[in-house]
Amino acid sequence: MSQSEQSSSSASQLPAEVQSRLDDGKQRHEAELIEWLKIPSISSDSSRRDDVHQAANWLLEKMNAAGLQTESISTNGFPLLVASTPPVPGAPVALVYGHYDVQPPEPLDLWTSPPFEPVVRDGKVFARGATDDKGQVLTHIHSVCDWLASGQPLPLQIKFLIEGEEEVGSQNLDDWLPELAEKLACDVVVVSDSSQYAPGRPAVTCGLRGIATYELFVDGPSHDLHSGSFGGAVANPAMALCQLLASMKDADGKIAIDGLYDDVAPIPDIEREAWKQLGADDEEFASSVGASKLHGEAGYTTDERRWARPSLDINGLTSGHQGEGVKTVLPAKASAKFSFRLVPNQDPKRLTGLIESHLERHCPPGIRWTLKPDHGAGAMLADANSRYAKAASVAIEQAFGTPPVMIREGGSIPILARFQEVLDCDCLLLGWGQNDDAAHSPNEKFSLEDFHRGIQASASLWQAIASA
Amino acid sequence: MSQSEQSSSSASQLPAEVQSRLDDGKQRHEAELIEWLKIPSISSDSSRRDDVHQAANWLLEKMNAAGLQTESISTNGFPLLVASTPPVPGAPVALVYGHYDVQPPEPLDLWTSPPFEPVVRDGKVFARGATDDKGQVLTHIHSVCDWLASGQPLPLQIKFLIEGEEEVGSQNLDDWLPELAEKLACDVVVVSDSSQYAPGRPAVTCGLRGIATYELFVDGPSHDLHSGSFGGAVANPAMALCQLLASMKDADGKIAIDGLYDDVAPIPDIEREAWKQLGADDEEFASSVGASKLHGEAGYTTDERRWARPSLDINGLTSGHQGEGVKTVLPAKASAKFSFRLVPNQDPKRLTGLIESHLERHCPPGIRWTLKPDHGAGAMLADANSRYAKAASVAIEQAFGTPPVMIREGGSIPILARFQEVLDCDCLLLGWGQNDDAAHSPNEKFSLEDFHRGIQASASLWQAIASA
Repeated sequence: MSQSEQSSSSASQLPAEVQSRLDDGKQRHEAELIEWLKIPSISSDSSRRDDVHQAANWLLEKMNAAGLQTESISTNGFPLLVASTPPVPGAPVALVYGHYDVQPPEPLDLWTSPPFEPVVRDGKVFARGATDDKGQVLTHIHSVCDWLASGQPLPLQIKFLIEGEEEVGSQNLDDWLPELAEKLACDVVVVSDSSQYAPGRPAVTCGLRGIATYELFVDGPSHDLHSGSFGGAVANPAMALCQLLASMKDADGKIAIDGLYDDVAPIPDIEREAWKQLGADDEEFASSVGASKLHGEAGYTTDERRWARPSLDINGLTSGHQGEGVKTVLPAKASAKFSFRLVPNQDPKRLTGLIESHLERHCPPGIRWTLKPDHGAGAMLADANSRYAKAASVAIEQAFGTPPVMIREGGSIPILARFQEVLDCDCLLLGWGQNDDAAHSPNEKFSLEDFHRGIQASASLWQAIASA
Repeated sequence: MSQSEQSSSSASQLPAEVQSRLDDGKQRHEAELIEWLKIPSISSDSSRRDDVHQAANWLLEKMNAAGLQTESISTNGFPLLVASTPPVPGAPVALVYGHYDVQPPEPLDLWTSPPFEPVVRDGKVFARGATDDKGQVLTHIHSVCDWLASGQPLPLQIKFLIEGEEEVGSQNLDDWLPELAEKLACDVVVVSDSSQYAPGRPAVTCGLRGIATYELFVDGPSHDLHSGSFGGAVANPAMALCQLLASMKDADGKIAIDGLYDDVAPIPDIEREAWKQLGADDEEFASSVGASKLHGEAGYTTDERRWARPSLDINGLTSGHQGEGVKTVLPAKASAKFSFRLVPNQDPKRLTGLIESHLERHCPPGIRWTLKPDHGAGAMLADANSRYAKAASVAIEQAFGTPPVMIREGGSIPILARFQEVLDCDCLLLGWGQNDDAAHSPNEKFSLEDFHRGIQASASLWQAIASA
């Protein structure tokens, strides 16, 4: 437990006024979370545009009320919310990044309770956005608001950048970032949009995978054909789509696109070793997601596959007759949405070229394909030994009663790599969620105990960073 | 032209009263077709049940009004309509088979005019069911009704069996057939539910492919997962579905299911030779369906692939996020509708077993599959040299001005093989449609010229059969 001792050594209590404000605020913290979760801010659904704006305004009003200096920056998409506390000369500056948009809730029939009518069951709040990211980003907003309300001076300046397009690629923030560089200048970006390693095992996340998303359209005859009169003589686009997608993955779970692994950074032995010590249990993991067993790239552990190896997933398939009953049709077209997770050194633009030549090589006769890249971003790594990572360990141990483990996360926060580049800052990924919180899935949830510990850890973090 | 001479030699004009009744009836024939086409009798859509019954009643009333002896036989599904003209001692008995149900019209957005609001454009009526089968079966009903109205005695007894479940497998007719054997006793079954070989090239169809339809369900995790946190570690059901379906077909267009070709009857050389003489043009054929080029089983011509070789087509694909925008999800499940066309000697039940062992062998780890067979039926062959085929040649030449070619058809009329077996009768397949009539597709149509020629040929057929 050397890490824990080292942490404790630099630990210190919060000012009593802040602590009591936090302790008395729990009900209010939960009520505000539930209020925010009721707003269906689905950024990918054009019919929800007003709701996304409403979610932004809700947050803006809350930060204004708390006395933060706020600004709503209009973009071609949804507004960028920027806020900050007063400067603290000599102390570092922390920037909290998060998002107020959420994933689509479909398939709706799999939700136990409606996605935008939050309910609390056995200590967990169920709603779209509960853990990704409203519940998690709110922990930092609550901690800062309570610091301010306590009358105690914050030991450092805290800025906020909360956007509304994280679930659709953060393009507008990406474009605006250089212009905002001065306004957002900071020493460390703090992000809570991921998970603990397991219940009761908080983590500092030192790496994220990148992402590249695509839609593939496959066309054959100009209209649907009778499968009797034409079947066997005319190429079937749905079969061609299956053949093209299947050709991208081999039986060992390796991606079968030529050149894809050329620029994949190997996993440092020190991390592979550390991750093995986490004692992952594949059977437990499989049952936690309801799968009969796990399956992935041969030669790697589950954590290595999730955190540090490239992956390819089909996100959606569409073709022909999907309604009730039989329709013996040879469909004119078929399409798929699919996406890759990328690891350090992989370049989404290069990947697109590799996919195009793969499709060119594998497309059957009589079939035309069109590949539409959506958004892409490289992977991101953070220094597990930075002063900020050490400060986070202190704060997390105070709030959770145990020091965090150092892990990576398989998801992507495309903008973080850009922060490092444009703002030249460190990154601190502190996930308060759990792997089974069902982000992007039906019945998304967030443990209220984790929510409150997250608020406590956040409040302690500001002090730990300042005194680190 | 020996065939043509031989036909002419046994040709004879229709009674003047019948001919003038036909000539004066064209407007009425078209008006009634359009009236019938307006009824959306989609047998596979439970919400259309009343419409299917309405289409049956429409026909029943028409046959009653014409003086046919009719009967509507209730089943667990839609009624079987049986009708007949008076017996003619010493003359053969013909049974006209057809169906009043239609395929679903989807995708609706590809229809130039609504599927159930028939419109005539450049001599063709556009509507779901125009060619399959309302327009075609109506040619026989019109010809018989006009014979009856003309006051001239029909030279043979004609029976009708019109069902409402042809597009969903004719299960109820199949069950009822033995019980109806006496009522339907006949020498030849006449069916018009297929196509001419080409415009101006009428045909007698001497064979149909069989059919076997399936739905495949693939399940992985119990709920949709975040493709970032789990991608690479948990098998993707949509990818598994693609791999399973792609594994059923090889690059040469051959079906890759072990044992499938074991019981496939080879194509008789005499037919292969005759078909080559038809002078099919692949480029013309490809452009007629809007495909850049044709693709099918190596070593066979297009007509051989369509008419006499087994085929596998995916009819529909469903998985994950199909809506607007990006959703980086690892879907919990995926499903496909797919169907085979079978050739003589293939048994649908045996095929189901072959598919199950194929799925068993190819299913990736962490994935569960469920195969749901829907309906199946063997292929059917008819004698191209029967007295009925010769009589049809005479009638067709009189109506179309050219003798028919002898072909097969790739589609299936599952019940015909059962007719041969239970009623011990010949089959006469006289398709008045065209390959580009878009049966089972958007913008289904039927040429009014072919419609009227079909009525004329049908009227002559009764005389030709009686005098054959």
